[in-house]
Amino acid sequence: MKCRKCGSKASVNMRQHKLALCKEHYLEWFPEQTERFIKKYEMFTREEKILVAVSGGKDSLALWDILTRLGYQADGLYIGLGIEEDIGYSSESHRLTQEFADERNLKLNCVDVEEEYGQPIPVLSELTHRGKGRPCSVCGLTKRHVMNRIARDLGYAVLATGHNLDDEAAVLFSNTINWLGEYLLRQSPVLPESPGLARKVKPLCRFYEKDMTAYALLRGIEYIYEECPYAVGSKTTYYKELLNQLEAKRPGAKLAFYTKFLEARKQGLFAEQEMVRATLNPCPNCGQPTSAPGLCSFCRLMERAALASTDVTE
Amino acid sequence: MKCRKCGSKASVNMRQHKLALCKEHYLEWFPEQTERFIKKYEMFTREEKILVAVSGGKDSLALWDILTRLGYQADGLYIGLGIEEDIGYSSESHRLTQEFADERNLKLNCVDVEEEYGQPIPVLSELTHRGKGRPCSVCGLTKRHVMNRIARDLGYAVLATGHNLDDEAAVLFSNTINWLGEYLLRQSPVLPESPGLARKVKPLCRFYEKDMTAYALLRGIEYIYEECPYAVGSKTTYYKELLNQLEAKRPGAKLAFYTKFLEARKQGLFAEQEMVRATLNPCPNCGQPTSAPGLCSFCRLMERAALASTDVTE
Repeated sequence: MKCRKCGSKASVNMRQHKLALCKEHYLEWFPEQTERFIKKYEMFTREEKILVAVSGGKDSLALWDILTRLGYQADGLYIGLGIEEDIGYSSESHRLTQEFADERNLKLNCVDVEEEYGQPIPVLSELTHRGKGRPCSVCGLTKRHVMNRIARDLGYAVLATGHNLDDEAAVLFSNTINWLGEYLLRQSPVLPESPGLARKVKPLCRFYEKDMTAYALLRGIEYIYEECPYAVGSKTTYYKELLNQLEAKRPGAKLAFYTKFLEARKQGLFAEQEMVRATLNPCPNCGQPTSAPGLCSFCRLMERAALASTDVTE
Repeated sequence: MKCRKCGSKASVNMRQHKLALCKEHYLEWFPEQTERFIKKYEMFTREEKILVAVSGGKDSLALWDILTRLGYQADGLYIGLGIEEDIGYSSESHRLTQEFADERNLKLNCVDVEEEYGQPIPVLSELTHRGKGRPCSVCGLTKRHVMNRIARDLGYAVLATGHNLDDEAAVLFSNTINWLGEYLLRQSPVLPESPGLARKVKPLCRFYEKDMTAYALLRGIEYIYEECPYAVGSKTTYYKELLNQLEAKRPGAKLAFYTKFLEARKQGLFAEQEMVRATLNPCPNCGQPTSAPGLCSFCRLMERAALASTDVTE
């Protein structure tokens, strides 16, 4: 297999694009494509301050790398979840993220969940009994809260996450297989800002997971190789495998599933009336917008955790 | 496993319904359910004449059996496709269908494609080069044409086919994975009559394929066990396998995928404007409605076949 640009030995072959590239041209092509998607979906400009949520994994570190290379004003946000288990997942990912930032002279904001909210994620999850034996639901809710808070408090216009195509296609598959209209209408590379909430963007949403890995490796980014121990065996992981079967049978199927969905929605496949948003009010405790009357889901979770923790210690 | 109704040994266990039944109660339950779907989707009444498309397979023969048991006026239509290959598929399915009708004193209309149109399906397919090396496209087009013609000429109000849930879910999956809006808007247990076209209904659209097999076996219906030799390795077969993986992981997933789709569409998920139908005109040759100017697809196919066949014999 030869590089389409220079004819030398290819390092990466992307069957979905019928495109093979050598290391040098892959590292050139990848940020160019990212720039193309940033423009296509009108994600942000070089004048806006961007907060990149970095986990220490390949996707988010590659995103931060690419955005700074492209000349965007991108700072990092690392959230310490306190997921240690056997492999020291959180401390290792923190170390790698901090090193990445230091080596490149980038600004990294850090929030430690245990320090700020009293307990690490696995304990919060146990105390509150939310989410069918996995802490993923509590983790997602907490991360969303913290990201929104830091973006608002530190004045970032945009919040960027490293979701890749496999992530997006798996979520879309889950929403489609269950015909969750509300979620189908909302899933998007860009969620516009609303009062109290920064714009949310996913600049990597059209890159395959395996191509993300190739980028991080070829660029020499040191990232945490392990998945979060709680992700193993999850529904999302299962849907990813299923989509990979489709992809193996028909290269490009995964990408087409996602992009054709965006295109069909843009062309008006779905009814407009469903787009009506619930009225949002500020949470009386944290001030973040919530559709529920009274406290937002996160503050209710914290309240439950505090109560349960008092019960335990009494 | 025990029968929920009488406590004796169960013959069939339907995990998607959390329901196990013995032979006697299964054979009772199955037509009752069919009647429920006929009513729910307003398919037809006992006053209407129904034409059941029978292939000699388990689904269509079971459908004919059930409709006559329920007291509907249902005649059969067998279309001889001339697919013989190694296993004598068409002659064997014709024999079984005819026997089924004779034993029950039912009226069976027969149309032989080769007799009426000059060539069997595999030859028509070869002559016309339609459909990527498989005769399935030509076969589908021909069957639709013949079914519509017989329903119109013999005055049937309704055309019933034996599509089961696995068939419908696989088609839905294919349309969804490719976001084919037009098809998503049209796939339905009932297609209303339009000028020149009988109403089309699928009374078995909520029964799993394996439960259809159980019904045919327990009822003692003799049907052709082999699939059409051209169906092996088809895209539809592949999607069925994929949906069965989902089903194995979560019993009921296949049914939920289909019924939640129907429900979401009914609740207005999709935009109305897409429902606008192309204007249909009668084909100048056969008189069946067509959206194309001039001859309909079937008559154009026949024209191509006739031309190609002259080329060959000259």
